[in-house]
Amino acid sequence: MFPSTDLQGLWENIWHELTSAVRDRQHPFRLPAVATVSPEGEPAVRTVVLRHVHSEQRRVDFYTDARSPKVKHLQHQPRASWHFWDPSRQVQIRLMTQVTLHRDGDAIARQRWENCPMASRLAYAKEIPPGQRMKDSTEDRLPSLDDHPGEQKGQENFVVVMGSVDQIDFYEIMGHRHRRAQWSMTRAGIHGEWIAW
Amino acid sequence: MFPSTDLQGLWENIWHELTSAVRDRQHPFRLPAVATVSPEGEPAVRTVVLRHVHSEQRRVDFYTDARSPKVKHLQHQPRASWHFWDPSRQVQIRLMTQVTLHRDGDAIARQRWENCPMASRLAYAKEIPPGQRMKDSTEDRLPSLDDHPGEQKGQENFVVVMGSVDQIDFYEIMGHRHRRAQWSMTRAGIHGEWIAW
Repeated sequence: MFPSTDLQGLWENIWHELTSAVRDRQHPFRLPAVATVSPEGEPAVRTVVLRHVHSEQRRVDFYTDARSPKVKHLQHQPRASWHFWDPSRQVQIRLMTQVTLHRDGDAIARQRWENCPMASRLAYAKEIPPGQRMKDSTEDRLPSLDDHPGEQKGQENFVVVMGSVDQIDFYEIMGHRHRRAQWSMTRAGIHGEWIAW
Repeated sequence: MFPSTDLQGLWENIWHELTSAVRDRQHPFRLPAVATVSPEGEPAVRTVVLRHVHSEQRRVDFYTDARSPKVKHLQHQPRASWHFWDPSRQVQIRLMTQVTLHRDGDAIARQRWENCPMASRLAYAKEIPPGQRMKDSTEDRLPSLDDHPGEQKGQENFVVVMGSVDQIDFYEIMGHRHRRAQWSMTRAGIHGEWIAW
C-alpha cells in the first residue's frame, strides 16, 4: 500500500518509488516489463532494467542492444508502455511513454556508456546478435575482459531508450477495496483523477 | 534456474511451472503481465491473474470485464504477449498467443462463471465500468454480497480471454552466463532451438 490518500501525495509516492528503484537492486520496480508494437502490429513485452528516472522532466530509461527486436519496434512505433509491479505492496504502476533512441555519437549515449561498468559493456560486444539461432546454449559468450577492442565494439551496439512519460496509471489492490488513479500530461499541464478499477 | 539442460526438458519445466502457478497463490507466474495493441496501434500492458493452463492444448487464460480497454484491443488485434517473471530464479518466460474471447452464452464462459467464487463474481457486477472517471476513490464499490441480482449482472460482463500459444521464449539469467531458448508451434509441429540472449 502506498501511504498517501490524495492524488498529489500519490503522485509524489510514485516518483519517489521509481527513483529509489534505480539505486536499490532489491526494489521490485527495478525490473519493469516494457511493451512495444512490432512493425507487423503485434504486441511484445520483456523485462528491462530501469537505469535512470528524472522525476522533474518525467523521464525514464533503459539500455538495450541496437540489434534487438525492440529497437526495430521502437523505430517503427515510438510508444512504449512500462509495467511495474510490487507484489508485497500489491501496487501496479503503468507509464505510457514517447520514446527517443540515443546511440553512438549522441551525447546522451556517450555519457551513459562512460558510466557503464566494464562487465555490462561486454554484453553489447557479443558477436552473435540477440535472438540469433544457435546450435547449443554455450555458443553465445561474452568477450573476455582482456579482449579490450570488445569494449569499443560494444559502444556501437549500445542504445539508450529514453521514455518521456505522458500518462501514469496507478492501481493498488487492498482486499476487495482497490484504488486506481490516472494522470495525463499535456502541454497544458498535469491532470490527475481517480478512476474505477 | 530451471533444472533441465536440454530443450525437451526445459519445455517440460516451463509447462510444469505454468500449471503449478494456477493453484499456488505464491507462485510468481500466477500474475503475468499481458501486452495488447490498441486500435490506435499503441502498446498496453497490465497484470492479469493466470486462471487456467492446458499444457497439452498449449492454452492459457485469464478473466476480465467486457467493459475494459483490453477487450477492445483484443477485438481489434487478437494477439497477446504474456510475460512471466520469477525474480528468485531469474527466469523470464514469454508466450505469444492468438486470443479468443468467450462471453455470456458461450459454453466456456458459462462453465468458468459457475466455478467462480461469489466474491470474484461481484467485481464484474460493479456499476461503474473500469477506467471511468470518479470524483473520489471511494465512489467505486463492489455490490454487497446480499445484493443477489448483482451476481447475474456480473455474468454479462464476464469474459474469458483464452490464448492459444504459438511461440515461447525462455530466458534465464545466471551471473554473466545466460540461457535463452525459443519454440515455435505451427501445424507442422513444435520446433525448439537455442538462441542468443
